[in-house]
Amino acid sequence: MTLSAGSRIGILGGGQLGRMLAMAAARLGFDTAIYCPHGEAPAVRVASRHWQASYDDVGALRDFAAACDVVTVEFENVPAGAAECIEAIGTAFRPGASALAIAQDRAREKQFLQDAGIAVAPWHAVDGPGELASAIRAVNGRGVLKTRREGYDGKGQMRLHGGEDPGEVWQAMGARPCVLEAWVEFEMEVSGLVARGCDGEIASWEPSRNLHVDGMLRRAHVPSGLDARMRAEVQSAVIALAEALDFIGVLALEFFVLPGGRLLANEFAPRVHNSGHWTPEACMTGQFENHIRAISGWPLGETRRLLDVEMINIIGEEALRLPTDYDRSLALTLYGKGEARPGRKMGHYVRRLGPAAL
Amino acid sequence: MTLSAGSRIGILGGGQLGRMLAMAAARLGFDTAIYCPHGEAPAVRVASRHWQASYDDVGALRDFAAACDVVTVEFENVPAGAAECIEAIGTAFRPGASALAIAQDRAREKQFLQDAGIAVAPWHAVDGPGELASAIRAVNGRGVLKTRREGYDGKGQMRLHGGEDPGEVWQAMGARPCVLEAWVEFEMEVSGLVARGCDGEIASWEPSRNLHVDGMLRRAHVPSGLDARMRAEVQSAVIALAEALDFIGVLALEFFVLPGGRLLANEFAPRVHNSGHWTPEACMTGQFENHIRAISGWPLGETRRLLDVEMINIIGEEALRLPTDYDRSLALTLYGKGEARPGRKMGHYVRRLGPAAL
Repeated sequence: MTLSAGSRIGILGGGQLGRMLAMAAARLGFDTAIYCPHGEAPAVRVASRHWQASYDDVGALRDFAAACDVVTVEFENVPAGAAECIEAIGTAFRPGASALAIAQDRAREKQFLQDAGIAVAPWHAVDGPGELASAIRAVNGRGVLKTRREGYDGKGQMRLHGGEDPGEVWQAMGARPCVLEAWVEFEMEVSGLVARGCDGEIASWEPSRNLHVDGMLRRAHVPSGLDARMRAEVQSAVIALAEALDFIGVLALEFFVLPGGRLLANEFAPRVHNSGHWTPEACMTGQFENHIRAISGWPLGETRRLLDVEMINIIGEEALRLPTDYDRSLALTLYGKGEARPGRKMGHYVRRLGPAAL
Repeated sequence: MTLSAGSRIGILGGGQLGRMLAMAAARLGFDTAIYCPHGEAPAVRVASRHWQASYDDVGALRDFAAACDVVTVEFENVPAGAAECIEAIGTAFRPGASALAIAQDRAREKQFLQDAGIAVAPWHAVDGPGELASAIRAVNGRGVLKTRREGYDGKGQMRLHGGEDPGEVWQAMGARPCVLEAWVEFEMEVSGLVARGCDGEIASWEPSRNLHVDGMLRRAHVPSGLDARMRAEVQSAVIALAEALDFIGVLALEFFVLPGGRLLANEFAPRVHNSGHWTPEACMTGQFENHIRAISGWPLGETRRLLDVEMINIIGEEALRLPTDYDRSLALTLYGKGEARPGRKMGHYVRRLGPAAL
């Protein structure tokens, strides 16, 4: 299936990723529709239609799916019922309910990565305080406990240093199913990013080096500093994951780089990803456009990198200093969010450091 | 006046230039509103609000202007009454009624260029068949007759080769005021493009070499092939024009290059211009973003060119061959127009030829 220009692309979710997807779609001549419960969401303001309804409103979902030629997502925590409802209508839903279901559950996600031959840190599924106690012993007390579901940007996580009481920790996490990951001393974090088309075509971007602060991405830098072998290893792993998931669209996979150069996968995102926000400015084709190309059955754009860049998130009231605090080497993107609340991602900029070494 | 992100930018006109302006505005976090009589216009589909009314609907214009923090245009033939109505409301109107009025009238335009010290081909204002007869004699029978108002993309023009009957020509042109331009044997056409900010700040792009077919732009190429002296001359002329107009926003000026290198200005556009569609892909900042920055009182983005490129318009049914007829070195933009009518600009692509020589 190849969508003709003018077809309507539906996006579940109205945040900044939906906004940038909608704009990439519009640039290719597509019409866009956003499904999102909020009236003033960033993506709504650049799309031609908006279904304002909750993600469990089956009637609205059916109506939306019937009005769109393909439906995609800007976040992975779409309720399974919504995904199934859209697929039942017969509208192509990409990347599809199965990839989302795996990404929504950290235990399934880690198991899937391992099954695809991708190394992860030792981890333990934890469904109660007793299991937590033995999992803590298994990692020698040091690890990160994460809820199996609904964590993002460092939310729903607790660092364990040893000596914590398993029962108290279990209650503090809300007595919810968790995974405990062994603590990993890493030298840096990197991520790989690929687009996979309807016919299995792959377009892969160069990995970025990522800096997180308080669990939230602050910066991504390319070149990453990885040597050629490690860059290839990152890209091979993301491609293997995309193929194992039979994925259509853009997929990101985050890694820890250990001393000595070993790579351990952390988590994947079945969607465009913050660590790839540098790609539109630095590459022949960016992640948003290639996601739209992939889900529309179009040939993918070339992903070669032209510039050395760093991408820096603009968080909370940092946005209030713009545009006066402006450096002309910056490419600025703001998300059109009303209120600059602390910790809220308001935009990002890409600093062009120079031409890429070829 | 510096607009804060989230302010609303109003655009008169709903075509592809309005669409690309709206998307550039959205990328900077602005809200956008389109004023345009057509319901399904390209710009409407990426903007958050639409006033669907005619350009002489004073009530709708006032309502629109009152709802916007600044108003700009995507075409120069805005009725003078509309411009004055918006300015009367007190909403900033950029580039302003005066620049539009000059651009709407080929005789005023040529006189203004000359008064700003910019050479143009010999020309004669023609208000009747008698004047036409003497003007034809003055240019030795060879020239281009153009209506003073409302011509674009080669419409409203007639080539005169000598021997035509002035009375018949006058009737064929609709018995409307015209200008007759002496025929110029030129080697190529180039255009200059600048953005001028609220405080008079100037950002200038490198001139492009332009190829027209049947009066319509087909291709623009950078580098242009002009030597450094001529590039500087083009840029100086556009800057002088912007200053003479006290212009705010992006301004384009087209030139003929004569054998031996003399430059004669042809016409200017008080807006973003088709011959600058290569700038977003090839430069640090493109024409759409810098127009939005200028009218919003923001500092302008750097316009340095990073890539050698050619921009090629996609006209009429050429659009139907996409996306299968796709070359991966192309950056594609489609305008979301429904019907691929002959001669209709449907989109453009930018071919990246390599890194720019620094």
